[in-house]
Amino acid sequence: MRALIWDGAHARFVHDVPDPTLMPETAIVRVLYAGICTTDLQILAGYMGFRGIPGHEMVGVVEDGPDHLRGRRVVAEINFSCGRCPSCLAGRARHCPSRAVMGILGADGAFADIVRVPTANLHQVPDTVSDSVAVFTEPLAAAYRAEEQTRAFARGRTLVVGAGKLGLLLAQVLAQRGDDVSVMCRSHTARGRVEMLELRAVPMGCAPSGADLVVDATGSPEGLAIALEHVRPLGGLLLKSTVAADHHVGLARLVVDEVTLIGSRCGPFEPALAALEASQIAVEPLLEAVAPLDRAVDALAQAGLPGKGKLLLRP
Amino acid sequence: MRALIWDGAHARFVHDVPDPTLMPETAIVRVLYAGICTTDLQILAGYMGFRGIPGHEMVGVVEDGPDHLRGRRVVAEINFSCGRCPSCLAGRARHCPSRAVMGILGADGAFADIVRVPTANLHQVPDTVSDSVAVFTEPLAAAYRAEEQTRAFARGRTLVVGAGKLGLLLAQVLAQRGDDVSVMCRSHTARGRVEMLELRAVPMGCAPSGADLVVDATGSPEGLAIALEHVRPLGGLLLKSTVAADHHVGLARLVVDEVTLIGSRCGPFEPALAALEASQIAVEPLLEAVAPLDRAVDALAQAGLPGKGKLLLRP
Repeated sequence: MRALIWDGAHARFVHDVPDPTLMPETAIVRVLYAGICTTDLQILAGYMGFRGIPGHEMVGVVEDGPDHLRGRRVVAEINFSCGRCPSCLAGRARHCPSRAVMGILGADGAFADIVRVPTANLHQVPDTVSDSVAVFTEPLAAAYRAEEQTRAFARGRTLVVGAGKLGLLLAQVLAQRGDDVSVMCRSHTARGRVEMLELRAVPMGCAPSGADLVVDATGSPEGLAIALEHVRPLGGLLLKSTVAADHHVGLARLVVDEVTLIGSRCGPFEPALAALEASQIAVEPLLEAVAPLDRAVDALAQAGLPGKGKLLLRP
Repeated sequence: MRALIWDGAHARFVHDVPDPTLMPETAIVRVLYAGICTTDLQILAGYMGFRGIPGHEMVGVVEDGPDHLRGRRVVAEINFSCGRCPSCLAGRARHCPSRAVMGILGADGAFADIVRVPTANLHQVPDTVSDSVAVFTEPLAAAYRAEEQTRAFARGRTLVVGAGKLGLLLAQVLAQRGDDVSVMCRSHTARGRVEMLELRAVPMGCAPSGADLVVDATGSPEGLAIALEHVRPLGGLLLKSTVAADHHVGLARLVVDEVTLIGSRCGPFEPALAALEASQIAVEPLLEAVAPLDRAVDALAQAGLPGKGKLLLRP
């Protein structure tokens, strides 16, 4: 099969990677679309020390595996957990200490023709959800995770810092639950996208301070300091950006104002798929372009440019 | 009166500072003891840009003010709040945006013969609590604040990083509520103090990871990274250290492990005074020495040395 390979120094497109083989309790999935995420760019900057095929946002069709899944259109949860350890048995499988993570840690991902996924991780896609919408399930699930973790601040004034793909999913999910959401944007393009989603855009430097909840969805180590400036005393700050670099930030304000900073990663697929099926969350405005898989190297470079929407790879 | 004055560049002992005068809704308090806190050392490193008389831990006797307080032995809450703003009216007076903070922000403190304090901030000291015990009320209140904020992790495995004065108060308060507490210590002196308090001491580098709750009470910008190494996924991390310097720390683990980082500052005096009255918290083992007020400059230098217990100033 064909795949993008990251060897720790270079990302190369390779035409003759061996196909993954079927293993017990897995399925072989032919990729329809794979989404490029900021985490992928961070991986190419050294994050997690990953080597192999990146890609953790995808929709595909099961080519081999259990009969009930064969031919089905699926999306995949990315944490491949053991299912037997105390974390897994306590319902915290996403934090299984011996997990692999598709395209991020110890398991090849979806920037390829074919990917192998544990059957326990697959969710069937409702017929009415198109392929290019379904590929947003994984990042939308992450937004629902943020919602779960910030219910103490629900229906307050919320500021989302960063109008990237994840920021706009987060903003929609938090607005849907009743938060009074503003999205801080750096560029005109971003502002246009925010307004197309009927959300309130505020330029950098003009955002009011004193938000009950601030979400750092910048994907950059500078986001946290900006977020800290805008949260009220006793407010919440959700940190969604996984970055390879260290943060250089004064945390005295976090202490003095008794802010709660919540790290947030992967989320539940069920509410994400349900919201996509009910068209409660708009993802089309987030889509920048579709590139063929063999242009993956170019597409990754494009995805890193400011103001870009979601780039999808199509094998 | 005599006082220690910090002018932004030098700490000087001055013999002829004008006495504070009585203002409406305040009392004039003659200081019996004032405690030196790591925050005072941070102020001398530039924290908060404070100028004036530092000192926010104290016990004293009311010399002038309302009749019912005159002659009473008191301790003082350090946030001088307006009492009228939305924060104050909502019961969050410690976060009043126009507050002064005794010896820290816009109000002279207790490294002096006499200090002026709003009467609303004064608490009478029970007769059975000695002066040198009562002076620990303010830091002990901060430990009770940490307890309030971390109840989601109560009765779990708790690691306190830093066996300084505040760390040992925190460890006692958290052990009292049923946490299985370990205290990470750097020095033999600290270890001895921890064990005198019948708490479990663990040397740096030997602390087990995976604590449900980790408290950074190091008073140093390095404490957060150490704390992050020892907290379990989905665990809590309480940040108690206000430091003037920036933190340089990789927060990817906080995101990946979905850790909740809670800033914590001042706390309620009632449970602190009650615990001191009931001898539930031992403070004598934390006491290093008492210095006369006119040796305050030396005492501040001493207080910054590693492994030192609480230094008190006596006017």
